[in-house]
Amino acid sequence: MQLYDLELSGNCYKVRLFLSLIGQPYELIPVDFLGGAHKKPPLSDMNPFCEIPILTDGALTLRDSQAILIYLARQYGGEAWLPTEAASMAQVMEWVMMAENEIARGPNDARLHDKFGYELDHGLAVDKAKRVLSLLEAQLEGKEWLALDRPTIADIACFPYVALGHEGRIPVGDHPNVAAWINRIKSLPRFVTMPEL
Amino acid sequence: MQLYDLELSGNCYKVRLFLSLIGQPYELIPVDFLGGAHKKPPLSDMNPFCEIPILTDGALTLRDSQAILIYLARQYGGEAWLPTEAASMAQVMEWVMMAENEIARGPNDARLHDKFGYELDHGLAVDKAKRVLSLLEAQLEGKEWLALDRPTIADIACFPYVALGHEGRIPVGDHPNVAAWINRIKSLPRFVTMPEL
Repeated sequence: MQLYDLELSGNCYKVRLFLSLIGQPYELIPVDFLGGAHKKPPLSDMNPFCEIPILTDGALTLRDSQAILIYLARQYGGEAWLPTEAASMAQVMEWVMMAENEIARGPNDARLHDKFGYELDHGLAVDKAKRVLSLLEAQLEGKEWLALDRPTIADIACFPYVALGHEGRIPVGDHPNVAAWINRIKSLPRFVTMPEL
Repeated sequence: MQLYDLELSGNCYKVRLFLSLIGQPYELIPVDFLGGAHKKPPLSDMNPFCEIPILTDGALTLRDSQAILIYLARQYGGEAWLPTEAASMAQVMEWVMMAENEIARGPNDARLHDKFGYELDHGLAVDKAKRVLSLLEAQLEGKEWLALDRPTIADIACFPYVALGHEGRIPVGDHPNVAAWINRIKSLPRFVTMPEL
C-alpha cells in the first residue's frame, strides 16, 4: 500500500492518522506539491482531479480523502470505524459529507488563504467555518463522538481542518464541546500528529 | 418513510429518483421553502443544517442527500447500487464525493445564481462546472456508468445538477459522453423526471 502525500495537507494527514489508528503499514511517498508534481504524469494519470492524497493498494488506485477513509475502514477496520448496517453507516456518512463539503469550504478554505496565500474570500470562509463550529458544538453536546457512541471515520474525516482552525483565524477555542472532542481524538491509542496541530 | 421535499431542488429530486428506481413507497411532504419552513421547528430540529431533503424511516431521521442515498441503497437496494466490498464501495464513493463537493460548487451554484438569484460568483461556478464536465467526459470515455459496470448511487448522486446545467448556463451539450450518460440514466426502468430536466 502506498500513500502519495503532502505533510502539510489536512486531507493527507487524515489518511496517515487513520492508517496509524488501525495499525496498517504503508509506504509514504512525498509529492513535490510546490513543483506541481500532482498536475503531471504519472500522478495526473492516477488522479485526473490532480489532487492528493492518492492511495494505491495492489491494483486499486483511489483519490479523495473521504473515499480513501471509507475504503480503509471497510477493508481493514472491520465494523468498528464504518458499520455496514444501513442506519449506522448513514449516520457516519452524514458527517463524512460535512468534511467533504462544509468543512472544506469553511476552515479548510480559511487556512488555504492564510497559510498558503490562496486567492479566495477569507470572510466567506470564516462565516462558513463559524457555522461548522456551531453545528459541531451542538452535535457534541452530551456526546463524545460525532456519529455513534464510539470513534468512527466521521470523527477522523472532520478532525484535521477543525483542529487546524487557528491557522485560518477560526475561533475553535470558543467552543468547549469541540475543544474536548479534539482532545479526545488526540488521546486515541496510536494517534499521530502533524505540524501546527 | 417520509421525504421532506422541494420539487425544484436537485438534491431532493435525486432522492425521489432513487426511491422510484428501487420501487420503495414513501410519503412526500412538500416544504414551504420560500416561507423558510426549513429554518424553523420542527424541521430545524430534525436537521440543524436547515436544509432539505430530510428523510425519516421509523425512528431514524437523516439529512444530506448523499447520506440518504447511501442509507436507501444499503437498507433497500441490496448489493446492486452500493456494494459492501471495500474496493467497489470506495469506487462508488469517489463519485458520490464529487456530487457533494465539486458538483455542488460548480453546476449547482451556477443554477442557484441564475434560477434563484443567489448572490454568489457565477463565473467561478462556471469554471468549476466546466472542470466537472471535463472530468466526467474523460471518466465516461468507453464506459457506460461512472463507477462500476452498472448504475450505482454514484450516477444518481451526480446526475441531477449536471443534467440541469442549462439552467446555470453550463454547456453540457458540448460533452458527448456526458450527454449519452444523461440519456442512459433517463432510460432506466422506473425513471422519474423533474421540471426543466
